[in-house]
Amino acid sequence: MKEHTLIEKVIEAFRCLPGVGPKSAQRMLLYLLERDRDGGRRLASLLNDAIENIGNCESCRNLTDSSYCTICQDQTRDSSLLCVVETPADVIAIEHSRSYNGYYFVLMGTLSPIDGRGPEELGVDLLVERCSSDVKEIILAVSSTVEGEATAHYLSELMSALPASITRIARGIPLG
Amino acid sequence: MKEHTLIEKVIEAFRCLPGVGPKSAQRMLLYLLERDRDGGRRLASLLNDAIENIGNCESCRNLTDSSYCTICQDQTRDSSLLCVVETPADVIAIEHSRSYNGYYFVLMGTLSPIDGRGPEELGVDLLVERCSSDVKEIILAVSSTVEGEATAHYLSELMSALPASITRIARGIPLG
Repeated sequence: MKEHTLIEKVIEAFRCLPGVGPKSAQRMLLYLLERDRDGGRRLASLLNDAIENIGNCESCRNLTDSSYCTICQDQTRDSSLLCVVETPADVIAIEHSRSYNGYYFVLMGTLSPIDGRGPEELGVDLLVERCSSDVKEIILAVSSTVEGEATAHYLSELMSALPASITRIARGIPLG
Repeated sequence: MKEHTLIEKVIEAFRCLPGVGPKSAQRMLLYLLERDRDGGRRLASLLNDAIENIGNCESCRNLTDSSYCTICQDQTRDSSLLCVVETPADVIAIEHSRSYNGYYFVLMGTLSPIDGRGPEELGVDLLVERCSSDVKEIILAVSSTVEGEATAHYLSELMSALPASITRIARGIPLG
């Protein structure tokens, strides 16, 4: 078997998923083929849709398949609050906690000059623009890693001239 | 958010994979969207191909995208040996061990009347037909579970009239 069979290629393709090694990849494909072809067909189709159609919200940079995400479209939220987070997963976690009713801004990462991520990659211009409306309080909910702290420090300095007050959550974010 | 967004639907779709709960499903999708869209696109496309094109080998019932699997097509193997296994994963494990050079027959399960799996579901007719050619030794490499033992017993009885000798591996199969 020098040439790879379709089965071998699909098993290899499953390994793009985080935490999936060769054994899990094989188990996943064989499970779908033997027991849940409908589920596999649906996953393939929806994943393709997601890859082709999900981009960043034009207001908050969160992932969405529209121009604006469902949160930014929701006009019943408190527009005086803006919570700045690192990733879309942070938005989901905070939403699950049901303890916050303002809007978000998603940096999609932290400052990391070594990886080539500067202010531009974090959408800082869009963030400043976003803050100059009726935002009264900016909550920096970034992680307490070195890179997170550096990012928070940079953003605090940058936005210190704005009328909004800037707060920083003590550590981490509520998970689940 | 009463209506499910595309992101929520895809996360839900990932849960058809074995061992993937809501947290892993979310992590997988966000990872692909944020960091590996090419990998995700390739996975979606190959998975769809696999679901649509992979069926059972007409000779041994193993999964394949051709009429006959690569092993049955390989004429350099020892046609006097036939190893009967439960699943395609067993074939992969035995092939990895590089200790066997005969052909296979894949039952795609064990006898389990309670789940409606009788001899027909295991392709027993095809197995008997397969054994009546130049097979000299039939190796029953089924698992040592209650259902595996019952299946082995049933097959031994059924094939006792055949000229081939029937052997049973002691326990389990080499893994990796």
